[in-house]
Amino acid sequence: MSDHIYKVVTVVGSSTKSVEDAIHGAVAKANESIRNMNWFKVVETRGHIEDGSVAHFQVTLDIGFTLD
Amino acid sequence: MSDHIYKVVTVVGSSTKSVEDAIHGAVAKANESIRNMNWFKVVETRGHIEDGSVAHFQVTLDIGFTLD
Amino acid sequence: MSDHIYKVVTVVGSSTKSVEDAIHGAVAKANESIRNMNWFKVVETRGHIEDGSVAHFQVTLDIGFTLD
Amino acid sequence: MSDHIYKVVTVVGSSTKSVEDAIHGAVAKANESIRNMNWFKVVETRGHIEDGSVAHFQVTLDIGFTLD
Amino acid sequence: MSDHIYKVVTVVGSSTKSVEDAIHGAVAKANESIRNMNWFKVVETRGHIEDGSVAHFQVTLDIGFTLD
Amino acid sequence: MSDHIYKVVTVVGSSTKSVEDAIHGAVAKANESIRNMNWFKVVETRGHIEDGSVAHFQVTLDIGFTLD
Amino acid sequence: MSDHIYKVVTVVGSSTKSVEDAIHGAVAKANESIRNMNWFKVVETRGHIEDGSVAHFQVTLDIGFTLD
Amino acid sequence: MSDHIYKVVTVVGSSTKSVEDAIHGAVAKANESIRNMNWFKVVETRGHIEDGSVAHFQVTLDIGFTLD
Amino acid sequence: MSDHIYKVVTVVGSSTKSVEDAIHGAVAKANESIRNMNWFKVVETRGHIEDGSVAHFQVTLDIGFTLD
Amino acid sequence: MSDHIYKVVTVVGSSTKSVEDAIHGAVAKANESIRNMNWFKVVETRGHIEDGSVAHFQVTLDIGFTLD
Amino acid sequence: MSDHIYKVVTVVGSSTKSVEDAIHGAVAKANESIRNMNWFKVVETRGHIEDGSVAHFQVTLDIGFTLD
Amino acid sequence: MSDHIYKVVTVVGSSTKSVEDAIHGAVAKANESIRNMNWFKVVETRGHIEDGSVAHFQVTLDIGFTLD
Repeated sequence: MSDHIYKVVTVVGSSTKSVEDAIHGAVAKANESIRNMNWFKVVETRGHIEDGSVAHFQVTLDIGFTLD
Repeated sequence: MSDHIYKVVTVVGSSTKSVEDAIHGAVAKANESIRNMNWFKVVETRGHIEDGSVAHFQVTLDIGFTLD
Repeated sequence: MSDHIYKVVTVVGSSTKSVEDAIHGAVAKANESIRNMNWFKVVETRGHIEDGSVAHFQVTLDIGFTLD
Repeated sequence: MSDHIYKVVTVVGSSTKSVEDAIHGAVAKANESIRNMNWFKVVETRGHIEDGSVAHFQVTLDIGFTLD
Repeated sequence: MSDHIYKVVTVVGSSTKSVEDAIHGAVAKANESIRNMNWFKVVETRGHIEDGSVAHFQVTLDIGFTLD
Repeated sequence: MSDHIYKVVTVVGSSTKSVEDAIHGAVAKANESIRNMNWFKVVETRGHIEDGSVAHFQVTLDIGFTLD
Repeated sequence: MSDHIYKVVTVVGSSTKSVEDAIHGAVAKANESIRNMNWFKVVETRGHIEDGSVAHFQVTLDIGFTLD
Repeated sequence: MSDHIYKVVTVVGSSTKSVEDAIHGAVAKANESIRNMNWFKVVETRGHIEDGSVAHFQVTLDIGFTLD
Repeated sequence: MSDHIYKVVTVVGSSTKSVEDAIHGAVAKANESIRNMNWFKVVETRGHIEDGSVAHFQVTLDIGFTLD
Repeated sequence: MSDHIYKVVTVVGSSTKSVEDAIHGAVAKANESIRNMNWFKVVETRGHIEDGSVAHFQVTLDIGFTLD
Repeated sequence: MSDHIYKVVTVVGSSTKSVEDAIHGAVAKANESIRNMNWFKVVETRGHIEDGSVAHFQVTLDIGFTLD
Repeated sequence: MSDHIYKVVTVVGSSTKSVEDAIHGAVAKANESIRNMNWFKVVETRGHIEDGSVAHFQVTLDIGFTLD
């Protein structure tokens, strides 16, 4: 967090396995179009239930990245 | 809400008529530049007053759409 | 709100038409199994988007009812 | 929202018909004693239930008006 | 999230192992008495500490299920 | 708070006398239908005013109880 | 809470004795200038400490009253 | 904060220069009609943008004053 | 609240009797190790239930004290 | 705030000097890629500390701009 | 949670691996200087991103411990 | 924000001049007893009013510092 200007975007990742996996997936997807990402913050953790058990976890992230 | 990655954008719609109309307008406008929108969430409802009566309703929405 | 004990349940109604319609639907459904409902409070307003326009509104309500 | 000083008051309107109608009623009532109202913000949406259906909607508004 | 009416219940699961495990346990327990569960939302994550280390994680979930 | 699964219900107690009395009343009422209650959390404190003085206090509680 | 328009004011009462006493004091003071008060809601509970013990409790209330 | 009853009003000040200036302006304006003001609390900081730069800061304050 | 620097600590008091008693106990305990305490703020009110009735109230306080 | 549709973006500005300077910097940077900005709202104020004193202030803003 | 007085401290743990690992690390570190820790509560989950993927998770905890 | 464990303390600074000055004062005071401070976050901005104008600003900060 140096003396730059950041922009913040909101992304929702999902995973059948874990909260961390959903975060990794969201960051990897964001990395396809955003350069210089610096930090994330978990805004919400939800998930879907199918046939009485957790189908996948959904984690909403704010991601901050430096504007060049 | 299947196993996709979502991005979330924030849009403010307005209408002289109703809260629903402001939501419809915001979603229609977002549809001009965003594909694969899936859900919205109302974040704030405000409005302007002119000459002692409601001039229009303003509804702030978070809109989630699938990243291809 | 007289000197009774209340219980509060959370219900989500939905409508293709309006926020009010979603509330009416949720209260009507709750009325099938709950007696002596007294008040509701809107907790969240969301909705689904299909083909670029609002498919339905979803309104989450806390409903208070008197325990006999 | 020009370079004025605003005062904010909180008013609760109610309507048997709709959220918008409750807002219009609250603003009309406030207009009897307040000049130069500029904006409102919805703080809470509640309502009463009688005989298993919605008796009326109650909407709490913050209303901002310019101090002369 | 189709055009149904949902009811929401709040459940707290616990696990000595992980947040995900606590969620799985809470959903499995709820599945004994609730049919047609659709989604959950994490409301709070806490835990107990014994002898200076984490004894178990406790995760509070809102669970939504369709009313038939 | 041992290694059990909890369910959480929301109850509103009221009392002409005190906040504590309203809590005692809500817990006593809940005790008629719920076994194994473990904790409560105050969510909101309100009350009614009649003839210019407090008619009764109303306290909203989340109550956690062990699922057997 | 009938079909009226309410106005809401915020008042802070204090008492050396109890939370309830601070609420009674705030409502009694408000009663000197406001007619037709209907309900209150506790917004914040604070207090002062002098010489290592509680000097008085301060309770912030929103008070709703009917506009004639 | 002695043993008095306070009333709280909400005021929005604005300034082209600074957050502090907007606060000073709001307090000065409130001073024209309110006696015995004791404290303020910043509730929200916003502002307007014109031609790509900040036109003015708007600061919403809760102001507490002693009721005689 | 003069022109000093404060430090804030968080303490949880408990009492079988009342919310006020739990606050008094927390302040008395803090007084054993902290000098120059000035104010407290109630952050959360919870409690334990045993055998179907309230076993004790637990009140979480932020306590501010002057740094010499 | 006329009858337009707004989009809201989140930007973080920083300054070694002041909160206002961080806001000016964030708005100036946003102005390089966004036309028709109308308002901002401060979401969070943080900062970095180096060698025991404030290195810079970081202010997170929501910025609203008109969609043409 | 017996009839003791608790103190609450806030600690931030971090881990390259998981949320649970960050919690374990924070509790282990706090255990070096605090006796009789009883519970924790997750306040915030954030993290750093380097070279387009998660570098580590940061979890902020409130930790409660009994004052002897 | 490297891979360390942080502790967070809450401090309130005050200044007759500005919000920034109150932050500088709080950080300087904390620096007398805390080593390795890294960041702060503004939690609340309040102030006192005397004779109808602002007597001083009070800013509550969470300060994070590395545990060695």
